[in-house]
Amino acid sequence: MPVFRADQLARIATGIFVAAGSPRERAELVSEFLVRANLAGQDSHGVIRIVQYVKAIEHGDIKPGAKIEVVRETPTSALVNGNWGFGQVGAKRAMEIAVEKAREHSVSAVCACNLYHVGRLADYTQIALENGMIGIAMANSTKRVAPHGGRESLLSTAPVSFAFPAFEEKPFILDIATSVCAEGKVRVMLHKGEKLSYGYIIDSEGNPSDNPEDLYRGGAILPLGGDLVGYKGFGLALAVEALSGILSGDGCAYEARKKGNGVFFQAINLESFTPVDGFKRQMDGLIRAVKSSKLRPGFEEILMPGELEFRTEQKRLKEGIHVPEKTWEEIRNLADRMNVDMVSLLEHD
Amino acid sequence: MPVFRADQLARIATGIFVAAGSPRERAELVSEFLVRANLAGQDSHGVIRIVQYVKAIEHGDIKPGAKIEVVRETPTSALVNGNWGFGQVGAKRAMEIAVEKAREHSVSAVCACNLYHVGRLADYTQIALENGMIGIAMANSTKRVAPHGGRESLLSTAPVSFAFPAFEEKPFILDIATSVCAEGKVRVMLHKGEKLSYGYIIDSEGNPSDNPEDLYRGGAILPLGGDLVGYKGFGLALAVEALSGILSGDGCAYEARKKGNGVFFQAINLESFTPVDGFKRQMDGLIRAVKSSKLRPGFEEILMPGELEFRTEQKRLKEGIHVPEKTWEEIRNLADRMNVDMVSLLEHD
Repeated sequence: MPVFRADQLARIATGIFVAAGSPRERAELVSEFLVRANLAGQDSHGVIRIVQYVKAIEHGDIKPGAKIEVVRETPTSALVNGNWGFGQVGAKRAMEIAVEKAREHSVSAVCACNLYHVGRLADYTQIALENGMIGIAMANSTKRVAPHGGRESLLSTAPVSFAFPAFEEKPFILDIATSVCAEGKVRVMLHKGEKLSYGYIIDSEGNPSDNPEDLYRGGAILPLGGDLVGYKGFGLALAVEALSGILSGDGCAYEARKKGNGVFFQAINLESFTPVDGFKRQMDGLIRAVKSSKLRPGFEEILMPGELEFRTEQKRLKEGIHVPEKTWEEIRNLADRMNVDMVSLLEHD
Repeated sequence: MPVFRADQLARIATGIFVAAGSPRERAELVSEFLVRANLAGQDSHGVIRIVQYVKAIEHGDIKPGAKIEVVRETPTSALVNGNWGFGQVGAKRAMEIAVEKAREHSVSAVCACNLYHVGRLADYTQIALENGMIGIAMANSTKRVAPHGGRESLLSTAPVSFAFPAFEEKPFILDIATSVCAEGKVRVMLHKGEKLSYGYIIDSEGNPSDNPEDLYRGGAILPLGGDLVGYKGFGLALAVEALSGILSGDGCAYEARKKGNGVFFQAINLESFTPVDGFKRQMDGLIRAVKSSKLRPGFEEILMPGELEFRTEQKRLKEGIHVPEKTWEEIRNLADRMNVDMVSLLEHD
């Protein structure tokens, strides 16, 4: 597998998006987010998306220069229309607005609609974090998940993200689907030709399945809680649909019109509630307490949300990012077709 | 089993709390919330708590006349100190403040600390709902839940509640623990002398257990997601600890000082984002879409969050509330000891 530094991949992605008609600044932003996903080990949200995004630009599904409009606003809230620009561009702006509003008014909520794929929610809650605030994010997308007891996919994987700053410990950044797994997990197993554990998906008849193919033959992912208490993940997914799909005006997963992501973002200013350093030190205490728990048989440590991703990032920053042959070939062919000079982009220091 | 109307139980509870030293208005509020839990079928949060609350008053753990103080406030946020009054009284006030603030400022966040048991979170998100708003609530409490991979209980069951108004459909009210189950579920099985399914709890060695007794012998409840993806419920529980335990100043489940509930409430004013009727009609659409899903084998219908509780309420309003002999005997003995005239309270129309 070819191995690249993060900056090499980012330059290549940027070069391709610019050649496809994107303003440079936006191309750089999207590329940075894609490469950050690769660094974190979440390759399904990484440079593998370059080809998809360029196709979307060519089909008019992404309008790279689209104006981001604030269509409704109060001192603490905003509704952002991404006008089908890159999802990352509209979503980043939405969280920046949330942070600006929370800085002055303690708490804010910002919805955004008409966004192409926004990528990982953690990238947005992290913006609140970098501003010393709590970040909350939810998103819906197209249908992949069955309601508890049902066998039709009618809900999205409905991810949520929470970010809290800590003092000496690494910040707490949670980013999870409210289904048993994200669609990417099933797709990866499909590509590897491996079976899933039971408990992730059902086939088109509603029976438990370990075959990833079944998801793409009319099956569905189960809501978090699975057979035992799937009504919990089902309820959470509905709440995410309501906040990021309905309140945003973007539409629900079950609707035929649905494409892209609707998002619901919040920023909360710690200062309005409690001394900031005290909050961060108590986060340290919580993290240390759970990490030092006695372990269950079969476990070697307690991992905090985001901890594995952080370690992968450290490793990949040092050792580089492996890009699968097939993905790399697709990217190279695309660059050739668009007359992007890969060699000079790779050489650059 | 003795059967009573809701109003009879509410008068009895009120009479006892007043005799124990509570201001009448607060006694009525707490009694209403307890009986409402019974009506919804959540008997573990119902009149069974009367005896516990009176003991707590006698031990000084509940100060029924405690002043509820707003100790920190901005136009959109507040920190409420319940000063160890009834949890319900402080929590209700906190959500009322959240609603007042969101009415003027679109979105609000209110934390409360030093609350005795607040009961069901749905009672508070419902207050936002009755005001035409979205309600969000989270709470932490004492430790019962293991971190994913750990065998010590260090987290609380960390419930969350979301409420959204609908147009013709019943409103959407979710109220779930972010652990596989609430502690009450295990206790009920223990009292019935029945086994649990595997997947709810572990014993003190961290092994899966179906014996409810194991929870009370050093075991723990598993986070939502269980063995398969328990890191998800673990992450959600940590987020709830941070918002309702740390931001509120109430403390985390793992801390020795922890008692009662810390809460984090939000109200969101629909009008700031979207026309209210449009939102409600889209909630109808979402509810109808998921309820009409084709079913999995073994299921007879798709139940919305809160739907079962609503049906139980309709039934119990008509047929009355059955109180187990043991619970009723305890309440009668308590009333006798406190010279509360049960007969006249029961006779009253």
